[in-house]
Amino acid sequence: MAWFLGVDGGQTSTIAAIGDEVGRVVGKGVAGPCNHVSGPGGRERFLRALGESVRAALAQARLDPKHLRFTAACLGFSGGPDDKADLVREFLHAEVLKVTHDAEVALSGAMAGEPGVIVIAGTGSIAYGRAADGRTARAGGWGYLFGDEGGAFDLTRQALRAALRAEEGWGPPTGLRDRLLELTGARTANELLHRFYTTEFSRDQIAALSVIVDELARKGDRVAMEIIERAGQQLAELGLAVRQQLFARDELTRISGVGGVFHCALLREHFIRCVCAAPNTSYVEPQFEPALGALIEAYRLVGLRVLPRIEEPSVTGSAEGML
Amino acid sequence: MAWFLGVDGGQTSTIAAIGDEVGRVVGKGVAGPCNHVSGPGGRERFLRALGESVRAALAQARLDPKHLRFTAACLGFSGGPDDKADLVREFLHAEVLKVTHDAEVALSGAMAGEPGVIVIAGTGSIAYGRAADGRTARAGGWGYLFGDEGGAFDLTRQALRAALRAEEGWGPPTGLRDRLLELTGARTANELLHRFYTTEFSRDQIAALSVIVDELARKGDRVAMEIIERAGQQLAELGLAVRQQLFARDELTRISGVGGVFHCALLREHFIRCVCAAPNTSYVEPQFEPALGALIEAYRLVGLRVLPRIEEPSVTGSAEGML
Repeated sequence: MAWFLGVDGGQTSTIAAIGDEVGRVVGKGVAGPCNHVSGPGGRERFLRALGESVRAALAQARLDPKHLRFTAACLGFSGGPDDKADLVREFLHAEVLKVTHDAEVALSGAMAGEPGVIVIAGTGSIAYGRAADGRTARAGGWGYLFGDEGGAFDLTRQALRAALRAEEGWGPPTGLRDRLLELTGARTANELLHRFYTTEFSRDQIAALSVIVDELARKGDRVAMEIIERAGQQLAELGLAVRQQLFARDELTRISGVGGVFHCALLREHFIRCVCAAPNTSYVEPQFEPALGALIEAYRLVGLRVLPRIEEPSVTGSAEGML
Repeated sequence: MAWFLGVDGGQTSTIAAIGDEVGRVVGKGVAGPCNHVSGPGGRERFLRALGESVRAALAQARLDPKHLRFTAACLGFSGGPDDKADLVREFLHAEVLKVTHDAEVALSGAMAGEPGVIVIAGTGSIAYGRAADGRTARAGGWGYLFGDEGGAFDLTRQALRAALRAEEGWGPPTGLRDRLLELTGARTANELLHRFYTTEFSRDQIAALSVIVDELARKGDRVAMEIIERAGQQLAELGLAVRQQLFARDELTRISGVGGVFHCALLREHFIRCVCAAPNTSYVEPQFEPALGALIEAYRLVGLRVLPRIEEPSVTGSAEGML
């Protein structure tokens, strides 16, 4: 039997998926975040997260790690492959190995390996696409200081800016201010601004506060609605910027949105409307999660054109020990 | 004889000015930056900068520091007065003392103590104003993460964003990219982006690169011109936001622009155009530098309505030892 491995190593978690040669997903494993290879202890943390996720997938698949050699493996990491490829090679036995960035495996998953464009909006934002001839392009992904429009950190940034404008007396009133103060215990938006510059809040914690923009937009807060709509539009612009690089104007192109920010219904709706306003462009739901996108890539490394199938536990074995 | 002291303590330098009771500026002294009271050694650095600038002003005025007690002193510091007022009190002998933030003394200088609004655009940006009845208001000043539109750091940010868009293939071509790479030795805009996130460049160093936006705008680079014009407009909006807080629509209001960014002629021109498009609003040149603004405030503390006059050295004494 030939076994294939796909890994999505992100800033929140590491997910490994093992498939057989006809696409059955026989095991999945999850571990902690997989970033920060550099810095003290980074190498160990990276190998631990990777090891835990793969071992958990192997255990679920009832495969013996000792004698296993994957036919092909594809691993996608946030922060890119440069500082990780050698570490992965030491750790993993695979006849063919590809180490890439997380956007590529997310794209392969969303588009089931076909050409298209994804817009990823988590804490930050980036668009990535691949044409039928293999050409790829990206737009954005410039981080919290220089870009990341439409990502969760930027949503909170816009919420705080609106709160500050209201507090300074030159912006429309918005419930965002009270809600921000309530959630953080700050007395004023200005005090919160200063606390955001300290180490008290991580960027992820600031980003997590963005749920209030969705919450208030759903209650009809005009300022919150405008922030959400602008974010949807900016994310669509990123996707269309990649489309423009890779696809002819008259070529049918599919765009997907991936990441936590798209759980916001209003943003998603606005994103889809803006994307579909472009000629010959349609929105599609992501078809597979990024770890399965990595598995699709692993299949393609050896010329296999199969898609992952997650079957009921009763098909691949007993339910014991299954995730 | 009664002596008055004004100090402008900024992130780049500390300037002290001593005046007599009829407004003659008899001594001026300059020292290093005056911020960062907190942190190791901060207290000493603060007192050293303050001491050096005041002693230099006293030396020029040929006044003996030992027996001198100022009738009134006003000191404005970047970062505000909260952590500095007590330190100043320990150090300085003044019958009446006011410790405030740098925007207030800059406003007093620019407006010669009269009502009005200033927009300060250095590395960051902020607007501050005072009405005839003493009410004050501010807009912006939210720092590089959440605001500072139109400041020098933001100008470089916009230049890099334009360079990245051009490099990714979805923005118009601009000379900004080549110029940024030339000045920093980076091979790509993306490489420069990543280096900007390290400690290699301070925020002030990044801000200093903004001169290329002016340079290319003067050469007719459309992208650079648009960045400059948008910055001028955003700075005008900050000023008008303060105007709206303090002055009635039909009340004649004066707005000034202060700080290095206004040295850019195109930006300044656009700022003035936007400011003057508002009803009953005019642009005025800043009348005195911030240190003399602090001196004006010192006079006002004791009810004096005199304006500083810097006279020829021959009037206040011999030219020896003059700045």
